[in-house]
Amino acid sequence: MKTENQGTLYGVGVGPGDPELLSLKAARLIGNAAVIAYPAPEGGESFARSIASAFIPNQCIEIAMPVPMRTERFAAQSVYDDGAKDIADHLRAGRDVVVLCEGDPFFYGSFMYLHNRLADQFNVEIVSGVSSLVACAGRLAQPLAGRNDVLTILTGPMDDDALEQRLLLGGSFVIMKVGRHLPRLRALLDKLGLLSNSGYVERATLPTEKVMPLADVDESCVPYFSMILIYDGDEAWKK
Amino acid sequence: MKTENQGTLYGVGVGPGDPELLSLKAARLIGNAAVIAYPAPEGGESFARSIASAFIPNQCIEIAMPVPMRTERFAAQSVYDDGAKDIADHLRAGRDVVVLCEGDPFFYGSFMYLHNRLADQFNVEIVSGVSSLVACAGRLAQPLAGRNDVLTILTGPMDDDALEQRLLLGGSFVIMKVGRHLPRLRALLDKLGLLSNSGYVERATLPTEKVMPLADVDESCVPYFSMILIYDGDEAWKK
Repeated sequence: MKTENQGTLYGVGVGPGDPELLSLKAARLIGNAAVIAYPAPEGGESFARSIASAFIPNQCIEIAMPVPMRTERFAAQSVYDDGAKDIADHLRAGRDVVVLCEGDPFFYGSFMYLHNRLADQFNVEIVSGVSSLVACAGRLAQPLAGRNDVLTILTGPMDDDALEQRLLLGGSFVIMKVGRHLPRLRALLDKLGLLSNSGYVERATLPTEKVMPLADVDESCVPYFSMILIYDGDEAWKK
Repeated sequence: MKTENQGTLYGVGVGPGDPELLSLKAARLIGNAAVIAYPAPEGGESFARSIASAFIPNQCIEIAMPVPMRTERFAAQSVYDDGAKDIADHLRAGRDVVVLCEGDPFFYGSFMYLHNRLADQFNVEIVSGVSSLVACAGRLAQPLAGRNDVLTILTGPMDDDALEQRLLLGGSFVIMKVGRHLPRLRALLDKLGLLSNSGYVERATLPTEKVMPLADVDESCVPYFSMILIYDGDEAWKK
């Protein structure tokens, strides 16, 4: 049950990578935070924390949720169980908790796992962020969708049949979570005649960013934070 | 032909409405701008300018592009012709020009019309913003898409057959540019059994914001800046 003395759970988008793409509100909330939380790969640095690091107060309590990568789904869910418990303890004690979210909290992010566990019991405020979707379009230097275009967002782990069904309908497309699926996705787009309309972005807005035609990508080293954008044939993307 | 002495054209997203959702980079560029440009409804205040107004320097040169609303497409294109000419003059004289864009510059915005006219001749930098898409999802307080969900972005002016073809495929949906199309869209969603999964947001993150189930909207006064979000049946949105 929600009560007046509880803290508020803030889901704060920190944007795609460039710390200067934090919103003024995100920078203010992080700068004043007593407790922050974020996902972190097991044994590695949290990407969300690295984006926001310049704004995190020295005395801040930090809750790192060590998320196993890729395969171990059940293990990941127990990490969010534990994280939600720690966060709930602070909220019950009247302390606000700021959760750092890569991109936007509600757009293909892990904040949904905390939200699902906590939103019934606590006040939640979402601070929307610059999504990877628009950041990648900006880096490819071509409008992604306008007027009455249809834009469909797909993901790399989808199987070929499901992807093809959507791709054949036309419009513009984004494929999120590309990573190790790149060779299969590229072969499918080539088969459908869409390869020359396809751009590729990894680590958008970071110093390590790569932006190129999908046809040119070295498929031996594609990171998780990579995206394919497929421009509508009428105004195909040209680099 | 691009030369070293030219200014840079900045397409700067100012977010959905709350000035605190400007990025730090947007606030910096606007605060240092010598020339800004923005669309404005004929005889009315520019929404993009109103969001950014606190950051605009007093001595700044302002180029307002008086865009006719709704119907007069050809007239609008001549407004962008004129705006692009004024902007090009400043760029050639070595002055940077900051164009204020509602939401994100490349996501269903009018910046594409300037970009199409100027990107071949001048250096352009896109500063991505918080899109209305993620802002509306945040205000409806429910994750819009996660894991391997398909999210399709549609627009109100699309005809019923085109909308229905997409809606029958499943997944989550956003309908942008709702406005006067609301009665027709609501009837279609009702027919397809999607009305109870549909949320409505107008003027997200502004003091005049409205957030409610689509079923409850008074269709007599729906503004252009309104959006319908349709949640996937498995985890339907409940208010």
